[in-house]
Order: sequence, then C-alpha cells, then structure tokens
Amino acid sequence: MNSRTLCLTSYPSGKLTTEHLELADIPLAPLLDGEVLVRNTWLSIDPSIRLRLGDSAPSGYLPPLGIGDALVGLALGVVVESRDENFRPGDLVSHMYGYRDFAVVSATAGGLGGAGTLTRIDTQDWPPQWFLGPLGSSGLTAYVGLFEVMDIRPSDTVWISAAAGAVGSIATQLAAHHGCTVIASAGSRRKADHLVDALGASRSFDYHDGDMESLLARAAPGGIDAYFDNVGGSHFTAALDALRPEGRVAMCGAISTYETSNTLPSNLFQITAKSLSVRGFRAGSFGHLYDTMRSTVGSRLVDGTMIYEESVYDGLEQSSTALVDLLNGRTNGKTLCRL
Amino acid sequence: MNSRTLCLTSYPSGKLTTEHLELADIPLAPLLDGEVLVRNTWLSIDPSIRLRLGDSAPSGYLPPLGIGDALVGLALGVVVESRDENFRPGDLVSHMYGYRDFAVVSATAGGLGGAGTLTRIDTQDWPPQWFLGPLGSSGLTAYVGLFEVMDIRPSDTVWISAAAGAVGSIATQLAAHHGCTVIASAGSRRKADHLVDALGASRSFDYHDGDMESLLARAAPGGIDAYFDNVGGSHFTAALDALRPEGRVAMCGAISTYETSNTLPSNLFQITAKSLSVRGFRAGSFGHLYDTMRSTVGSRLVDGTMIYEESVYDGLEQSSTALVDLLNGRTNGKTLCRL
Repeated sequence: MNSRTLCLTSYPSGKLTTEHLELADIPLAPLLDGEVLVRNTWLSIDPSIRLRLGDSAPSGYLPPLGIGDALVGLALGVVVESRDENFRPGDLVSHMYGYRDFAVVSATAGGLGGAGTLTRIDTQDWPPQWFLGPLGSSGLTAYVGLFEVMDIRPSDTVWISAAAGAVGSIATQLAAHHGCTVIASAGSRRKADHLVDALGASRSFDYHDGDMESLLARAAPGGIDAYFDNVGGSHFTAALDALRPEGRVAMCGAISTYETSNTLPSNLFQITAKSLSVRGFRAGSFGHLYDTMRSTVGSRLVDGTMIYEESVYDGLEQSSTALVDLLNGRTNGKTLCRL
Repeated sequence: MNSRTLCLTSYPSGKLTTEHLELADIPLAPLLDGEVLVRNTWLSIDPSIRLRLGDSAPSGYLPPLGIGDALVGLALGVVVESRDENFRPGDLVSHMYGYRDFAVVSATAGGLGGAGTLTRIDTQDWPPQWFLGPLGSSGLTAYVGLFEVMDIRPSDTVWISAAAGAVGSIATQLAAHHGCTVIASAGSRRKADHLVDALGASRSFDYHDGDMESLLARAAPGGIDAYFDNVGGSHFTAALDALRPEGRVAMCGAISTYETSNTLPSNLFQITAKSLSVRGFRAGSFGHLYDTMRSTVGSRLVDGTMIYEESVYDGLEQSSTALVDLLNGRTNGKTLCRL
C-alpha cells in the first residue's frame, strides 16, 4: 500500500515556495505489533517545520530533513487498522505524521516533545480540528506563555505579536479576558482592526506601517510589562526597548527569522539594564496543563466569549500552498489542511 | 572648598583613553541639613560607568554624562563633617560619589539602584576595601547571579566569563565550593591558568585562543547548564549554542559591548529551541541578601577557603588609568583606586 506524501525536493536558498515541495507515492511498511494504520483527516500547518527545510537547522532543534524526505507535522486521523490493544479501527487520534494521506504510527513512541505521541481524541464536546488549534498545541502554547512563563497580571500591558495567528489569536483573547491591556500586532491593517474589533485587544497595529519602535510607542506610550514573542527579529528588538523594568518575554517561535539570516540585536544590554526575564519554551513540556487549558478555552469557545478562526485548505495537494501562505502571513487564525 | 574630581572632557568615538578624562577642581556646595562631607579613601573602578561616557546611553539605563560632568561610582570614605544625626565625623561610609577627593552626600537619597545610598560600614572584621569588592556589590552580584537568578545545583556545569575580574573571581570560587563543574574564561593565558590553579575552576581558557565555540566545546564537551554573563557579544552567542535544554543565563554586564557596536549572527532562536531562561539583574535589587552573602563570603575569605585579589592604583590622578586598564582587561580581581 502506498500513501501520497509531501516531500522536500530541494533546499530553498531564501523563501520557501511550492517548487521546493512535491507529492510522492511512498510505500507504507507492513504493520508491526504495537503499530496502527491511520487515515489522516486534518493536518496542522505550522511555521516551525520551516526550520527543518533548510540545509542546516539551529543546533538544539530537530535536524534538517534530507532531500526526498517526507514532511512531518501534527495531524488528526482515523485508525483503519490496529495491532495495538489500546487502539481500535474508527478511533480518532492525533499524531505527528502529517503531510500525507495515510501513516503507520507506533502506539507508544513519542515525538515533537511529547505533542506528537499517538493520542486518542474524545470529540464529544468539540469539533475535531480544535484539537490541532485552540485545544491543541496552539492553545497550550498561548496558555503556557501567558500564565506559566510570563505569569501575567491583570494590571499588565502585554504585547502579543503575530496576534492574528493560531497562537496569537488565542493569547490575545486569554490576556484580554484576564484583564490585561493587550497590544496586538499583525501583518495587515485588516487583521489589526479585527484584533480590536473581535478579539478584545485594546490597541493594535500593522507592523508594516512604520518602524516598529514608533508603532509600539504609539500603541503603548508607557511601555509594556510583557511580550509574547512569536516573531523574533525586529519585533524582539523593539520589545527590549519598550519593556519596563522587571519585564518578561516569552519566546515560542521566531517566524520572521525562519527564512532570513539576521543579526543579534545590539540592544541586548536592555536585559541587564532593566532586569528583564527572557524565557523560551515549548508547549510539549507542559502537557500536564492540557486539561486545565482545555477547560478554560473550550468552555469559552462554546459559550462564545472566545472565538476560533481558521484558514482551511482542502486536499493534500493544497498542503504546500497552505504552508507557503502561512509563512508569508496570508492566512488567518489556525492554518489547516482538510483531507 | 574645592574637590579634585575626574571629569569627562570629550566623548570617545571608540575606545576610552585617559585623554577623554581630566581632573578638575570643582567647588563643593555648603552642607545643607541632612548632608555629610566625606573624604574619599577608596574608589571602586567599575566597567559600567563606560555606558555613561558616550553621547548616548542604552535606554533604561542611567543617562549619559554631559561634557564637563564629574564621573560617579561607588566609593568608601570618612565623614569629616555632618549635618545629619545618623552620621558623625570619623564614620566610615560608602556612597556613590567616587572619582573625587571629597564629596557632599545626602544621608538619605539613594542612587545606583540602592547600592549608592550613604551607608555606614562596620569594618571590625574585614579590611575596608572588601566592602567595595567581595563584600560589596561585586560579591552580591556574584552571589545573586549564581544562587538567585540561575539557582545553580552542584551537578551543573557553569561557565563564568571574565572570571578573573571582580565579580567573576568571586563567582568562580562560590560555584566551585557549591560543587559545580566550573568553566572559567578570561583574557590571558596567565589569568586562565590562575583560575584553575588558585580559584577552583575545573577548566579554563583564554578567549583569544581561537573561536569561542571551539574553546567552549573543548572545555565543556557535553555543553553547559548555566552561563554567568559579564561580557556579552560573542561570549553570549557561544553560550546560547552550548547551553543544554532548560539552561539558564544570568546577565549582569556586557563589557565586550561597551566600546564597540557589534553585529553577530543571531542565534536567539536557541532560547526557544532549548527552553532557555535568560535573566538580567542588578545587585542593587537584592540588597536584602547582603548579610547572607557577607556571612558566606566574608568567613571564607577569613578562613582562607576563598581568596580575594585586587588591582590597586594609588592616587586620584591614577583613577583614569585604572578605568582604562580595566576596560582593556589589564587588571586582575577587583580594580580600586586608593586615595
């Protein structure tokens, strides 16, 4: 049996395009004991895979893919055959072998820092794809960044970058509900307006509208107490300047740096001068908080006090376009591919 | 009455030299109620004043001095006249008006984040100049960086940069006594050898001996758990690469960046990839730990299980040379000027 699978055909020298990716028919190995065969139904399209599509990846991160290798990423699917006693045909599961129609998955091996372990999904209360977004690692990243890493207080002014994205849109709403003054930024005027109109941000800006320091100073004239960094680069630099003493930064991604080489900001001394705390984190290390996060976010999504937004691409043949669109800021909310 | 005082005569465009500084006779204002007149006896020479000797200082830090302004810095002195009920002639005090023979100091106003507030020094157990070094803000910086900011454990491999300096030499010894594997770096072979031979470092290197990544990889083949950053720049960059997951950085200064603007390849994504924690701090915020630190460091210095090293310049006319030598790595241990 074969599975159509999105593979890397060449390393991009700058921007990733759909030319660097190609669907190929890959033979599936026969099921071994402890494995299940899954038919994928939803693929999570995440920017971090871009780090593995160059010929070198940051040390400390997962290694680069080889030419011809299959892309990976979180996915939802239905078990069609099982050789593990804990899974039965028909079970809805999440796992890490996205970007393909079918996957053979070990029932026990982990992946993606715990988030990729084969997991049965109970969707009686919520639509299944929410488990890839607001109730999945995007939601957990937002929740952990705000409440565990930065320990936000209602009196804080919090800047959330990429605030119209999968993580940012949840973080913006959670921080606003917590009572914070939320400064939200995104990559278009339309997105920026939506952040105030629909997601509860106090003020917002399109980061293309001028230099970052001025835009941030106008939105937060008194400075900021916390910065949720999804973007890196000049966003991070501006945050260091705008943070007040004892300010906090949570870094969960740096999408602006995935396709360009940039230099270390020369204002790092701000970290010392203002006793700032800068912490990187990955949601996978906080899996014990899934239930807490889901009860908060899930109930708010159901009662309408939070909203969920998604950009859905139909068919595996659209998965490469979905990824390129995401990396170029052309999607909104959670980016998904529905098979 | 006048006081000879070291003043800034021009802004350096690159390296500070003694040509940018000059002693001038400055009239002292008459004592007001609540003020004391102090004859300085010891001046602490610290690299951070360099940040205020350019025509722009990092935002969030103290503003630049104007041309003609007097330099400031921690000093010890003897009260010669007092109009405050808490201080009497003959009292030994610390305050922030260094780089001059005499100073008029308010008995109550703070400065330098609390560390500069006029404070009576009780030297019955220790030599007075220790209160500018291992029992003063240098010692507190070392203590807080290791035990409060990075929370070091005996199993940690800790890299300490500028380890032969005022803060680094105390930090190296404290971390070694705590059981850590200490990697210590300095700016000469002689200093590097001394760190292992006399201060308890497990391994050391002269950072001029090759590229930082290779030097660090040779000294700590398995990576590091914590990095005490006195230096910034390429030292910081190398640390981000060498840190293991959940690693910690304490930033208390960035001497390598005070006289140059540097641009380095950005590897800040390591903070996210490895869930690192990077915290800036200033000892002044931890004044409540002075007693704890002094009882640890002071008793070790007295019983000989720690050693104290100083570079002493005699006479106020040597204070500019002392500062320039410090900034160029030509001093050892605590740099002081004795009046």
